[in-house]
Amino acid sequence: MIIQLNQQITSDDYKQLLSILNKYNFNTKKVRTQLGIYLIALGNTEFDIRIIGNLKGVKDVHAVNDKHKLVSRKWKTSPTSIDLGDNHYVGGGDFSIIAGPCSVENEAQIHVISDFLKEKEISIMRGGVFKPRSSPYSFRGVGIEGLQYFAHVCHEKNIKIISEVMQEEMIQPMYPYVDIFQVGARNSQNFNLLDALGKIDKPVLLKRGISGTIDELLYSAEYIFSGGNEKIILCERGIRTYEKAYRNTLDLNAVALLKEKTHLPVIVDPSHGTGIRELVEPMTLASIMSGADGVMLEMHQDPQNALSDGQQSLSLKQTGSLLEKINATVTLHKKM
Amino acid sequence: MIIQLNQQITSDDYKQLLSILNKYNFNTKKVRTQLGIYLIALGNTEFDIRIIGNLKGVKDVHAVNDKHKLVSRKWKTSPTSIDLGDNHYVGGGDFSIIAGPCSVENEAQIHVISDFLKEKEISIMRGGVFKPRSSPYSFRGVGIEGLQYFAHVCHEKNIKIISEVMQEEMIQPMYPYVDIFQVGARNSQNFNLLDALGKIDKPVLLKRGISGTIDELLYSAEYIFSGGNEKIILCERGIRTYEKAYRNTLDLNAVALLKEKTHLPVIVDPSHGTGIRELVEPMTLASIMSGADGVMLEMHQDPQNALSDGQQSLSLKQTGSLLEKINATVTLHKKM
Amino acid sequence: MIIQLNQQITSDDYKQLLSILNKYNFNTKKVRTQLGIYLIALGNTEFDIRIIGNLKGVKDVHAVNDKHKLVSRKWKTSPTSIDLGDNHYVGGGDFSIIAGPCSVENEAQIHVISDFLKEKEISIMRGGVFKPRSSPYSFRGVGIEGLQYFAHVCHEKNIKIISEVMQEEMIQPMYPYVDIFQVGARNSQNFNLLDALGKIDKPVLLKRGISGTIDELLYSAEYIFSGGNEKIILCERGIRTYEKAYRNTLDLNAVALLKEKTHLPVIVDPSHGTGIRELVEPMTLASIMSGADGVMLEMHQDPQNALSDGQQSLSLKQTGSLLEKINATVTLHKKM
Amino acid sequence: MIIQLNQQITSDDYKQLLSILNKYNFNTKKVRTQLGIYLIALGNTEFDIRIIGNLKGVKDVHAVNDKHKLVSRKWKTSPTSIDLGDNHYVGGGDFSIIAGPCSVENEAQIHVISDFLKEKEISIMRGGVFKPRSSPYSFRGVGIEGLQYFAHVCHEKNIKIISEVMQEEMIQPMYPYVDIFQVGARNSQNFNLLDALGKIDKPVLLKRGISGTIDELLYSAEYIFSGGNEKIILCERGIRTYEKAYRNTLDLNAVALLKEKTHLPVIVDPSHGTGIRELVEPMTLASIMSGADGVMLEMHQDPQNALSDGQQSLSLKQTGSLLEKINATVTLHKKM
Repeated sequence: MIIQLNQQITSDDYKQLLSILNKYNFNTKKVRTQLGIYLIALGNTEFDIRIIGNLKGVKDVHAVNDKHKLVSRKWKTSPTSIDLGDNHYVGGGDFSIIAGPCSVENEAQIHVISDFLKEKEISIMRGGVFKPRSSPYSFRGVGIEGLQYFAHVCHEKNIKIISEVMQEEMIQPMYPYVDIFQVGARNSQNFNLLDALGKIDKPVLLKRGISGTIDELLYSAEYIFSGGNEKIILCERGIRTYEKAYRNTLDLNAVALLKEKTHLPVIVDPSHGTGIRELVEPMTLASIMSGADGVMLEMHQDPQNALSDGQQSLSLKQTGSLLEKINATVTLHKKM
Repeated sequence: MIIQLNQQITSDDYKQLLSILNKYNFNTKKVRTQLGIYLIALGNTEFDIRIIGNLKGVKDVHAVNDKHKLVSRKWKTSPTSIDLGDNHYVGGGDFSIIAGPCSVENEAQIHVISDFLKEKEISIMRGGVFKPRSSPYSFRGVGIEGLQYFAHVCHEKNIKIISEVMQEEMIQPMYPYVDIFQVGARNSQNFNLLDALGKIDKPVLLKRGISGTIDELLYSAEYIFSGGNEKIILCERGIRTYEKAYRNTLDLNAVALLKEKTHLPVIVDPSHGTGIRELVEPMTLASIMSGADGVMLEMHQDPQNALSDGQQSLSLKQTGSLLEKINATVTLHKKM
Repeated sequence: MIIQLNQQITSDDYKQLLSILNKYNFNTKKVRTQLGIYLIALGNTEFDIRIIGNLKGVKDVHAVNDKHKLVSRKWKTSPTSIDLGDNHYVGGGDFSIIAGPCSVENEAQIHVISDFLKEKEISIMRGGVFKPRSSPYSFRGVGIEGLQYFAHVCHEKNIKIISEVMQEEMIQPMYPYVDIFQVGARNSQNFNLLDALGKIDKPVLLKRGISGTIDELLYSAEYIFSGGNEKIILCERGIRTYEKAYRNTLDLNAVALLKEKTHLPVIVDPSHGTGIRELVEPMTLASIMSGADGVMLEMHQDPQNALSDGQQSLSLKQTGSLLEKINATVTLHKKM
Repeated sequence: MIIQLNQQITSDDYKQLLSILNKYNFNTKKVRTQLGIYLIALGNTEFDIRIIGNLKGVKDVHAVNDKHKLVSRKWKTSPTSIDLGDNHYVGGGDFSIIAGPCSVENEAQIHVISDFLKEKEISIMRGGVFKPRSSPYSFRGVGIEGLQYFAHVCHEKNIKIISEVMQEEMIQPMYPYVDIFQVGARNSQNFNLLDALGKIDKPVLLKRGISGTIDELLYSAEYIFSGGNEKIILCERGIRTYEKAYRNTLDLNAVALLKEKTHLPVIVDPSHGTGIRELVEPMTLASIMSGADGVMLEMHQDPQNALSDGQQSLSLKQTGSLLEKINATVTLHKKM
């Protein structure tokens, strides 16, 4: 059960509410986000919610039988729109395109790509500055200084940026520069990081684990939400299967099912999701039809010489050509 | 290397060709299909194919480095169109819709559904009469008599039918009635069955194995082709993964990749591929954008009371509504 | 519910039994095997079996809540011993060693290996004569003639043989020669083949599917048993997972769980199960401790030059060394 | 290439070494651990290592073609023994038993279980105090205070303790109390945490990821080693597969293969690895035969009422019975 409280609920009314819930053997957890105050009541599944609905200080109450509460569409039936500021939104009916290199490499690159995005009216640029690498001997990113320059250039052009955060300690240093914090697949169940991201007010893009289930992804989102941050974007990025013909198996079933289960926006990453440049276009267009709220495309000014994962990066020209097809497909999908 | 021979190649020219190939240490396999005579030469990867190209009796020659030969797009670059007769085709630019119940249940059902298909201009009806069942105690189909009635009703309306064949012995009894022989996921590597289907001249729809790789699917198709039957349709039907939220994980990456690798048409089965009715529509539309040449939809006049797998069947009304969206999406995809 | 009938049950008693079951809404299936007559009654889960137990012609009755009936340990709690004839048994407390080449290659090989087995007191030799191959261009076995010679040589030495059957039509031609029919992973759900093997009286070794579940394996065994053949040996042979470090992931959890669930013997194939020679020894010994009733080892007189899968074959010397460790481990395990 | 340096290498000798490596286009990384100083040289695969071997200040040099360097058995061929202090070791020929509850629950529990371990001469107790939980609403552990008490009681009895660390910030607070830091499956590629654990001098038990490959596990170990900490224990804990009959699929192939590839000790967790109490005994004994250096058993004084995962916990009595079988099996395995 999710009980939405009035912001001005008195302490007496709150105590009374708790005592009633206590009487009915509920465990409770109070959640205060940017947008509201909620009391999550767990444990008693057969309860007449009208008992609560009429109490003072209670704005609304919903029985949510799902294991996931605050992220469930059973509670909030309309799709959530995430406000990035400056008239940029993700979800809520908008289709978002995020594009950029896997890793930020140098200043020249930032200029070339951000100019391209500006020209194409793409409003979010991706670029890693701290990179998770299987091997300790691989390139691990340009770090916080690279991020500062990245943010400086993009923000001048009214382009928002998204970059991966790998540990709690980096949230504050990165905070002034990033507009969306990305949680990578390997940290999808790094619960301390999720807790910490629940305490900030900037959006978080949460990737599905390398072999994460739909349930686990929603639970991880519930961590962030119940920590106090409602601004969550989910991201399908391919799962690990027996098939060796692609690096990951991009799972569009997950997109279609998540759109049934949650009010949060769902983005697809067809670049990492397949690892094969030729599959990016068909899987991007397929994503739109599966119900995605956006795509995250890896692109590079010179894919052959990309520092990481050049195999899956689109050139600027390929990206431009794909954008037109995306627009046509989005237009059709909205009419349906 | 694939050597296409003239139908009228003389026995002397053929002997000479073999002796040259022998000299260069090739193993050869002669393939005679409905459409041509081919000599597959294996083993010597560094060979100047012009030596062969100018010989008498040789129509054409292609070096094919792929493990798969006759099914490869490296040899036949344009998409294959499968002729079902009476102006019905699968592949080659057409988008095919196959619809019908999981199992044929009774005569009334055949009438209701075939009338619906006729009205909607859907030209292929599916319906199992021999059903593979995990448990020996489950319903196993209406058998050959049901098939006769099924064919009789559909053929009167110029609707082609597709039905699953589970063993070599049933090919001849089913032959007069079915227009496309379906090979199920569990028989995807039943090599004796594939060999036998190579000897007939009717189209075969070959499903990917329950956890079949792309490579294995193409090899299984190569069995049929090299056995003498070029009329092969591939079908993606969902793979087995760790994810329990859907019955299978429909893998559209496979569709996009198969379209790169083979000239054969690729059909998608979103009904069995997901096992969830709500996912059939988004995954059908996504399939089109991933490059599929058609979809196979499970439908039922009364899904709640379907004898098998009602959970994933669309009602007639749902099917009708989906058809309009399919048409709009196919129209857009063709323009791209 | 499984009702064991007396061999001499009168037709009147049988009719009465059926009419009672009918009254309680049971579906029934009569099963006559080499060893008994059973009536499987399905559908009514709340029924007092004593109503049946006292009827004339009824030998015994068991409520079996498992989905699997005749293969369940809930019905038959002691482990089944499969009689191969001539004092050779599989299961029932014996530990069986099956060894031999992947494919029978030639007569000399049969002599060398069968002599070795004789010397080492190994009583079952494996060897494929019809080989399932992903590619139609690979070696497909020496066929029925090779089998005749194989059987002739082994039977003279009182060695039993096991060989793979891939289709119903081959059961009769192979019947005079093989002592155990092997069903390969790709045919684990070839239900027509399973039905046909239910009608013979020789033992069947049934491999788990390439990504077959425990449930599916038991259902496939139920096909054979309910078809009339009780002599079934199960075989774990590695499953398909995301891990690329070995060809298959040999799953000993399956062995331990199968020993809980079924009375049938369970054999392990560590050679195909891992595809790596160095893993055969540790996984063989581990199999014994997981509860296996035997192992099937691939060996070759000259592994470097094996026609197929030499990478996983043991040499004669390696096999001999492993045998001593097997014996010590089996001795310890029996004491526990 | 791994170059072991003398502890007293002069700065001039070191400079000369670097300049030679530079000349041959090597990238280098200097690693200083508790036990030695190493220079890892990467990139040039065709190099005569004798050029380096004779330089001053160089103790030893090894060409290591594996992707993994410091953890590879190609460099260090004898098994590593990890010294826990007070005559307790893991690896190097010893078989270690770690036992205890999933989560530390209360003081009484610590006494009961540590007394039992003392009596049975088990020298390492496990117990989580910070628990990773999919759902934010689940019990998350007794925290650092619980850990203090846990350590106090165990250390008085000369029992070492192992407990899970989930984030870098907790390393220092936990440091005085734990003898082995456990990295859970969800943090197996939390590279910041691995880096931080490379800077301490206490042993680390590193679990394989939920669907981690052997390669990834070795790379993660390489992070810790190249960060400066040689005391690493690997742990197989079951992987995620399609099979639903057990919670995870314990993968003993991994154990056998890791023993070929690395000199680090490998422990098996059959409790989490299967999630089924009945499978713990057979899989524990099978682990020994697959080559494991130890097992980690989940046990509870009252499994029915365990706060978490009671389904897989052994009772004290079951643990005692298993210990005898472990000892007999280890004795046999050592003789082989």
